[in-house]
Amino acid sequence: MSSAPLAPGATIGILGGGQLGRMLSVAASRLGLKTHIFEPGAHPPAGQVADRVTTADYDDEDALRAFATSVDVITYEFENIPTAALDLLESLRPVRPNREALHFSQDRLVEKTFLEGLGLQVAPFAEVNGASDLAAAMESTGTPAILKTRRLGYDGKGQARIGAAGDARAALDAMNSAPSILEGFVDFTFEVSVIAARGLDGEVVCFDPGQNVHKDGILATTTVPAALSAPQHRQAIEAARKILGALDYVGVMGIEFFVKQDGLIVNEIAPRVHNSGHWTQNGCVIDQFEQHIRAVAGWPLGDGSRHSDVVMENLIGEDMARLPALAADPANALHLYGKADVKPGRKMGHVNRITGPAKG
Amino acid sequence: MSSAPLAPGATIGILGGGQLGRMLSVAASRLGLKTHIFEPGAHPPAGQVADRVTTADYDDEDALRAFATSVDVITYEFENIPTAALDLLESLRPVRPNREALHFSQDRLVEKTFLEGLGLQVAPFAEVNGASDLAAAMESTGTPAILKTRRLGYDGKGQARIGAAGDARAALDAMNSAPSILEGFVDFTFEVSVIAARGLDGEVVCFDPGQNVHKDGILATTTVPAALSAPQHRQAIEAARKILGALDYVGVMGIEFFVKQDGLIVNEIAPRVHNSGHWTQNGCVIDQFEQHIRAVAGWPLGDGSRHSDVVMENLIGEDMARLPALAADPANALHLYGKADVKPGRKMGHVNRITGPAKG
Repeated sequence: MSSAPLAPGATIGILGGGQLGRMLSVAASRLGLKTHIFEPGAHPPAGQVADRVTTADYDDEDALRAFATSVDVITYEFENIPTAALDLLESLRPVRPNREALHFSQDRLVEKTFLEGLGLQVAPFAEVNGASDLAAAMESTGTPAILKTRRLGYDGKGQARIGAAGDARAALDAMNSAPSILEGFVDFTFEVSVIAARGLDGEVVCFDPGQNVHKDGILATTTVPAALSAPQHRQAIEAARKILGALDYVGVMGIEFFVKQDGLIVNEIAPRVHNSGHWTQNGCVIDQFEQHIRAVAGWPLGDGSRHSDVVMENLIGEDMARLPALAADPANALHLYGKADVKPGRKMGHVNRITGPAKG
Repeated sequence: MSSAPLAPGATIGILGGGQLGRMLSVAASRLGLKTHIFEPGAHPPAGQVADRVTTADYDDEDALRAFATSVDVITYEFENIPTAALDLLESLRPVRPNREALHFSQDRLVEKTFLEGLGLQVAPFAEVNGASDLAAAMESTGTPAILKTRRLGYDGKGQARIGAAGDARAALDAMNSAPSILEGFVDFTFEVSVIAARGLDGEVVCFDPGQNVHKDGILATTTVPAALSAPQHRQAIEAARKILGALDYVGVMGIEFFVKQDGLIVNEIAPRVHNSGHWTQNGCVIDQFEQHIRAVAGWPLGDGSRHSDVVMENLIGEDMARLPALAADPANALHLYGKADVKPGRKMGHVNRITGPAKG
């Protein structure tokens, strides 16, 4: 079980049944592997393409136990897995990526401290547990700054901007007394992310960096190639290798960087396949989803090189009204998530627009 | 229902749960469509990635009726669907490709007559219903020739080679009294196939021809680009357009040609996605499976152009022992079918070997 590659016919358990779990299931099927989805919500998008689905809460120990013993290895599509559930699952089957990666990515303060410890540049930050901390923190990071809860932040939720001292009270209230972190602003030119994979044997394969544009705190587009200089490109890849190696990581990780004239700042790491890596589905022969499945299944990683240039655009809520036009454009490859209801702000799918053969 | 494109969330019913149904299901998921598989055999490969599976025989009218009414449109992965089942299904939901296509491809004699009627070149052929017919047929086609049952031929089964008059008796016995057709040999240089798609609106998109090599009557490899001259390439595409148009066809069709110095001979048509089109999964942005789903769902067809050159190799039976080496080679993209048992002659998967950016 431990380090031999999973044979075709084996089953990968996936915690979370959203679009990432769905695309992981599809990738697993290409390698002859089955998937079993664990998801509290009914009718998860991933369930439409998975061999099995368990609908249960993360505190349902019987369900967790039955799930774990029905699979050969466990992975996940989101990082906020309750600790007790993880404890139980880990006692029954290998969980990849490992606990270490979750530990660092579940807490912004721990994450930043870890990254700084690796000699990587991060935004100025300070711990905040109340009004008195905040004044000192603002002095240390400068303003404007963003106050964020240490845990469970996702797509701009649990965040408040502090432009000047007068914003402090409202920002603290928005945190609802949760342990928080104040992050100083970084004056950056643009943001890129690297989707990196590390195999069970320690091999690391990185996809080319993508350039991200956010709108209302949600990723809007990722463009490859990114407008990085060769040294910047190298620096991003080297940082990714350092992070994955330090965590003895197995699987795909998304790493966001702010690009400044004089270097790269690591913004955030996500121990899973990442929205900014969706372009790989149509830009590479082996995409981030298959790369992740290969890693957690103990297979050799695939080739990560890019054959086409791509602009990935998220389809959010009302964007679905554009579907007829998007489907009719021959430059587009569509990827829809099988979600029943269109809601404002909800990620419904994405489109990979092919802009030409790979260059740059 | 009839001609409006299916909206995301709709369900495509697929007759047959093998590897073709499996890869069709995966393609449907990209477009936000669900699939429901109808298959007599238990645990079909397609069931691992489909939203629903019905396990029932083609003479189970209740099961057919429940299946049809649960889906929005019906397609199939194989052409030998029993007539009574088709009658019932057609009365409840659109079946695409249509009956016409099945009619022609289910019977080799009818197929050849149809193709000849379109002005396309086919191998010399003659109807054979017994020993007396056979002598006349051999005179008309010349020897060597191949005696084939008119119906249900697949991967070299139900065929017998007649080198000289002395082989006639054994060949007839091999047909087991089934209505047959004698096909004269064609002295060809190589075989190619065109994977062509036609949308509900009549638009036709063809993938580049692939060059096929068979072994023991089973497809072994398909290579793109094929070694066709520009006029031969044009002739193949024009023949494909003519065939699909004449049938008012909706979906993907595989068309095999023998290539001779002085022209192309149409060997066979298959009204479905085709093994010789598997290279499109890694050579094109939109593959044959998505193209078929787009067509039967009434969507506009996708771009069929090739970004990479590919050699597709089938993995048959014992080839699965080569899996570790195949998985470790970065030029390879693997596609395994999730079949539980490795059997000699059984198609277990295929590998698309990327040989470079598209040229030729």
